[in-house]
Amino acid sequence: MLIVVAGMPGAGSSTVIQHALKLLRESGEGFASASSPASASASAGAVGFFKHLNYGDVMFEIALQEGIVKSRDEIRKLPQTTQQEIQRKACDKIAALSKKENIILDTHCTVKTPFGYLPGLPAESLKKLSPRLFVLIEAFPHEIARRRSSDRTRERDVEDEKSIEEHQTMNRAISMAYACLTGAPVKIIENHDGALEKATTEFAELLTRISQNSV
Amino acid sequence: MLIVVAGMPGAGSSTVIQHALKLLRESGEGFASASSPASASASAGAVGFFKHLNYGDVMFEIALQEGIVKSRDEIRKLPQTTQQEIQRKACDKIAALSKKENIILDTHCTVKTPFGYLPGLPAESLKKLSPRLFVLIEAFPHEIARRRSSDRTRERDVEDEKSIEEHQTMNRAISMAYACLTGAPVKIIENHDGALEKATTEFAELLTRISQNSV
Amino acid sequence: MLIVVAGMPGAGSSTVIQHALKLLRESGEGFASASSPASASASAGAVGFFKHLNYGDVMFEIALQEGIVKSRDEIRKLPQTTQQEIQRKACDKIAALSKKENIILDTHCTVKTPFGYLPGLPAESLKKLSPRLFVLIEAFPHEIARRRSSDRTRERDVEDEKSIEEHQTMNRAISMAYACLTGAPVKIIENHDGALEKATTEFAELLTRISQNSV
Repeated sequence: MLIVVAGMPGAGSSTVIQHALKLLRESGEGFASASSPASASASAGAVGFFKHLNYGDVMFEIALQEGIVKSRDEIRKLPQTTQQEIQRKACDKIAALSKKENIILDTHCTVKTPFGYLPGLPAESLKKLSPRLFVLIEAFPHEIARRRSSDRTRERDVEDEKSIEEHQTMNRAISMAYACLTGAPVKIIENHDGALEKATTEFAELLTRISQNSV
Repeated sequence: MLIVVAGMPGAGSSTVIQHALKLLRESGEGFASASSPASASASAGAVGFFKHLNYGDVMFEIALQEGIVKSRDEIRKLPQTTQQEIQRKACDKIAALSKKENIILDTHCTVKTPFGYLPGLPAESLKKLSPRLFVLIEAFPHEIARRRSSDRTRERDVEDEKSIEEHQTMNRAISMAYACLTGAPVKIIENHDGALEKATTEFAELLTRISQNSV
Repeated sequence: MLIVVAGMPGAGSSTVIQHALKLLRESGEGFASASSPASASASAGAVGFFKHLNYGDVMFEIALQEGIVKSRDEIRKLPQTTQQEIQRKACDKIAALSKKENIILDTHCTVKTPFGYLPGLPAESLKKLSPRLFVLIEAFPHEIARRRSSDRTRERDVEDEKSIEEHQTMNRAISMAYACLTGAPVKIIENHDGALEKATTEFAELLTRISQNSV
């Protein structure tokens, strides 16, 4: 089973995933998680095991191995066709992994490039991945703008709130195209400032239900 | 021919359809309609005959026959995969009916479930149904919220206006994915408080035009 | 290569395309352009050649040749199925041309018809055209409303700002369905009053990058 979790930079999708998986492990729900294929180990839990995979990380690993880039941020500056080629290879890798274990795919609905909003999951990829559920992690534009400006851990473009709102609108729109093509539902989880626990709990409950095959 | 009419609970899609078909019968346009396959009878009218089918009713009939549920509201509480299975069977039944007569399919763009917005007409269904036209029945969020709270005839979740607005946004987005996949246009008809007659007339005129093959 | 540029009537997509191509020719970038297949001639430029094709013009040429219409505005008053048939033929013609040269396809995301928003590029067409990039030319609803009312060169329906905003929302939504199906990005270029040069420059730079295969 593969679950897509999508959020724009600053929405906090990775954080929500990590906290939810931690919560489930600690509450004895039997979940385990790992951020990279290498460190992942199968859980003996009763409910299920989800591996947390970041699409960008998988793309970066591939681009690094093939000597195309040296740092992660170089990827989105690559020619569109090269990005799409790496995206395709990463997709094949993830699709293969999802045949063997449950994957939470941490990614973007669209990536904002100099050439516009590039779909993170084009029809071709969706066909390979067959996601069971799309989860959109959202926050208010002003929250995202502030989180980005105080985030010093990686290079980011400064975008004002208006462009963040536009991006979020386009992400919602494309998520419904994803839903239409796959038949999978789209769940919006709001991750507002000071309410990470609420978002975390909401996502953890979703994982529990899905794992119990009750989704 | 199959026409999709979609509205969220409280938008009044069923009412608009019923009133428009009544209007056409009374104005001697030769239309006839029926809410269930059993009571439907062919019209001798010159312009055309449309059978009013509610997707949820067809799903409920199937789920009831198969002993999966006892009441209609249980359907949306079923596991996602079960809902999708019933949806598929209902789709096959409706597609088969539309080969023999004109269908107005009364349904939802998306159904709000605990797992998010579940597409009412995924790509697989659209391929079978080949709709000629999508009609979205809309109202202001505050109107829908109020209509829902005063509607005591069936169990409904209380949603505030903000979530209704979000739902409507997602419905519009997915309707354009439906349009893209099928090539069929999307017509928005507003069904505001006190203006049911306007919505009814607008939809009746649309049916007349389509029936005259002038669409 | 085929690039789609879409804008609703009054957004100024044709103007932006014409000015950008002129800018590139004058700046010695080696671009050339032509508004009709007949007057187009291959450019000897180093960077590339783009032919400016208007989808509506190609449709009109076909409808005229087949004796279906006499003036351009009659097309959108034709039965939906006839419009779709002409659309298909125009699509085949454009797809054939794009095999031989670079095309900028000047079109609409959706066309507003009495039957609602008719998709300009349904899935079937996208498959044939394989666009590399979608560019949306946008302006504020009040700017578009005013531009339309002062445009006396062709017949247009009067739409108020609210309906323009709705149309723009639906266009954005369907553009993301187009992106999802093709994998191509969607770039929004704002063409505000008094800022045609900014829009022109932005589009010209996009063409230069694409032509340099760096997209």
